Amino acid sequence: MEDQFLLPNGANRDAIRQMGYAFVDLIVDQVLAKQAGEFSQKFTSLPLTIPQTGRHWQDILQTIENKILPNTINLHHRGYMGHMDSVPLAITVWADALIAAINNNMLSYELSPVFTELEASLLSWLGQRFGLSPNCFGTLTAGGSLANITAFLLARNHHDQTIIHRGNTQLLYAFVSEAAHISFEKAMNVIGLGKDQLIKIPTNPKGEILIDRLQAAIKRVKQNKGIPFMIVAVAGTTITGAIDPIGDLAQIAQDNNCWFHVDCAYGGAVIFSERWKHLLKDTDRADSITFNPQKWLGVARTCAMLLVKDRQVLEAGFDQHLPYMSFHDLNFGNLTLQGTRRTDILKLWLALQALGLSGIADYIDRSMAFTAEFCQMIDRSVYARIAVEPTLNIVCLESKDPKITNKQLQEKLQKNNQYWLSLPQWQGREILKAVILHPYPKLTDIL
Amino acid sequence: MEDQFLLPNGANRDAIRQMGYAFVDLIVDQVLAKQAGEFSQKFTSLPLTIPQTGRHWQDILQTIENKILPNTINLHHRGYMGHMDSVPLAITVWADALIAAINNNMLSYELSPVFTELEASLLSWLGQRFGLSPNCFGTLTAGGSLANITAFLLARNHHDQTIIHRGNTQLLYAFVSEAAHISFEKAMNVIGLGKDQLIKIPTNPKGEILIDRLQAAIKRVKQNKGIPFMIVAVAGTTITGAIDPIGDLAQIAQDNNCWFHVDCAYGGAVIFSERWKHLLKDTDRADSITFNPQKWLGVARTCAMLLVKDRQVLEAGFDQHLPYMSFHDLNFGNLTLQGTRRTDILKLWLALQALGLSGIADYIDRSMAFTAEFCQMIDRSVYARIAVEPTLNIVCLESKDPKITNKQLQEKLQKNNQYWLSLPQWQGREILKAVILHPYPKLTDIL
Repeated sequence: MEDQFLLPNGANRDAIRQMGYAFVDLIVDQVLAKQAGEFSQKFTSLPLTIPQTGRHWQDILQTIENKILPNTINLHHRGYMGHMDSVPLAITVWADALIAAINNNMLSYELSPVFTELEASLLSWLGQRFGLSPNCFGTLTAGGSLANITAFLLARNHHDQTIIHRGNTQLLYAFVSEAAHISFEKAMNVIGLGKDQLIKIPTNPKGEILIDRLQAAIKRVKQNKGIPFMIVAVAGTTITGAIDPIGDLAQIAQDNNCWFHVDCAYGGAVIFSERWKHLLKDTDRADSITFNPQKWLGVARTCAMLLVKDRQVLEAGFDQHLPYMSFHDLNFGNLTLQGTRRTDILKLWLALQALGLSGIADYIDRSMAFTAEFCQMIDRSVYARIAVEPTLNIVCLESKDPKITNKQLQEKLQKNNQYWLSLPQWQGREILKAVILHPYPKLTDIL
Repeated sequence: MEDQFLLPNGANRDAIRQMGYAFVDLIVDQVLAKQAGEFSQKFTSLPLTIPQTGRHWQDILQTIENKILPNTINLHHRGYMGHMDSVPLAITVWADALIAAINNNMLSYELSPVFTELEASLLSWLGQRFGLSPNCFGTLTAGGSLANITAFLLARNHHDQTIIHRGNTQLLYAFVSEAAHISFEKAMNVIGLGKDQLIKIPTNPKGEILIDRLQAAIKRVKQNKGIPFMIVAVAGTTITGAIDPIGDLAQIAQDNNCWFHVDCAYGGAVIFSERWKHLLKDTDRADSITFNPQKWLGVARTCAMLLVKDRQVLEAGFDQHLPYMSFHDLNFGNLTLQGTRRTDILKLWLALQALGLSGIADYIDRSMAFTAEFCQMIDRSVYARIAVEPTLNIVCLESKDPKITNKQLQEKLQKNNQYWLSLPQWQGREILKAVILHPYPKLTDIL
């Protein structure tokens, strides 16, 4: 195994560098450059054997090129619009190797001094852009589901601080729209309150929560001696990209003494655009916010976060200590579900440095402009029409031809290597979804 | 922002490649090669300003070199022995960039076809090495804490399947040793059972759980109408690296109808060594196992996992579905706390390919041999002596000189750039801890 690490005498330093260059070439030529490649190829058998003796990296790279890459899903294809997957900003790709090499650990200050400082500062800066006070705080999480689950945990323990130590015995209810992400259901299971106590409120056809239905549901729960503890607003729903009326929900949460969480994992990115930030109002009233730069900011995953009003909120929700670390005022391992954690904050910092504020705004504005263009293309299409008027850069479509189902249309477009659209269940039927996230999306009239 | 992604005409392809090479050079020369550098330098002010317009990557790399890297903790230093941090295998560093570039998502099969297959196969192979049946299954998690929390969730829902939907109202008790990881406490908070219901059993001076104390505690809980649902064995405790008597605990778990979890996040690596695998017996009796290749297998973090007897265990614990994905039999997002997840399985696969089975065994054996050498050095030392006889490659020390505290000794060694040891709380006092994980650890007689 000697040659797998840098030798103290540096004898293999150039070999390790050459391996790095070879990975760079593979990434540039066989991954990033596949904008006009296939979505994915026929599944070949996988290289599952673990060898007795190690293989040379050149040999391994051959296997990656021949057996792994063809079986990935190619998000770099300009017609890939299936889900909220972005082509990663190039600098964040290289950053992931740097993060791995430094290998610091967000568990504690002593294991990641600069990144702990950076995460605290950068997330406070971001929180303020969402309208939170200068005392606001946050933590990166390995994906948005963890951020949402953490928000539920904080809300539960805020409702009754004794639950941390004594466990829960009350019937506590949370309210989200039917269009909200499945992680809220998962959260109610995880934190021990039960999925049945997640009340899913119907939406209008666009996917926005119906306020009167929410109010009726809260009333019903209270009449049955249930306790509402949490209300969620979604900004950028998974299927239609809809945005709930955040201010109205904030008021209802306040009136009912509920924690107010805004899940703008997807839609949060619009705050960087002068032109589009009006879509996301009233986030300043949130107790917690989920936001994922791994989606619409183009940071290679994972890069997601939970923002809160102040650090004490996280401290109170976890009440954790690290007996095997030197005391420090700020050990992130005490403030999140995760202990060991990569320093993904470096990726976010790099993305912000490389794009600059105007670059981010440009990125959002272009994406919205492409969406308008895409909609015009659909308006001219003989095959498809718009099924749900888009709010952001997510467009839901359906087949125009009664003899062709949405599924058939999806399969045809995919098979012809034209568009890769997803086929979610929406209000009782399958529709086609296009997420216009690619920096250079295909906008030709073939649909 | 145009130049931040590969242009469709490929005009910036070489620029992106050059940026990649520059990151490789920075990583090799300024990170990996710092084996004889400083542990960390004086903290300089951080580059927190987010610029209006994007900065060129060369300029950004300068900032990283001058302001970020000096403020990291340098795990590549041959005297760094503070925590369970490994120098990452070189190939796993480059792999992290490849993972970022491919940017597939373990959420669902359609977003990561090859990696879903790879994770299912590779983790079943690993589970079998721990003695589980060929039906065994597993999932990677972003760190060991998440794996442990997931194990608790599965155990709770296995005890009473109605909790998923109706929430918990029972007094359920889990049993771990006092030396077990803090994530178990976190888990009891997260899953809503309450930290008070985590019973911490005393250990012997090495850190191994006292079986008779456990049996007495279970009896006491039952007498008070509490319900034991979970027993944990630790193999490789955080502070002394001790291994609980796994077989005895398995039997007690069985006798009391409890879920049996083995946390060998650290110690699990010994299964790859013919010479040392005897230390880890009876893991075949586990209901779930936490194992972290990011620790003693040298995979760049994060790479951790939860192994279970079969897939149905995970399905039953979550009972989740993905309405916005095409149906597939295996969508990992339904089987873990995380939704979106990086394809870290590629790193593990690469590590196994590059090392081979004999390379891994060699890595473990060398580490144990270095530990013996380190202990001999301490035996000759005038400053320190061994405080806890090591089981694995973790050695706890204390100052020999009554006029020098352990903390003073730690600070001196660190300040002189000799050894970076940690100073955990162990059985009521601060001791020094050395984790001999570095592939080329410093073993000179200066201690």
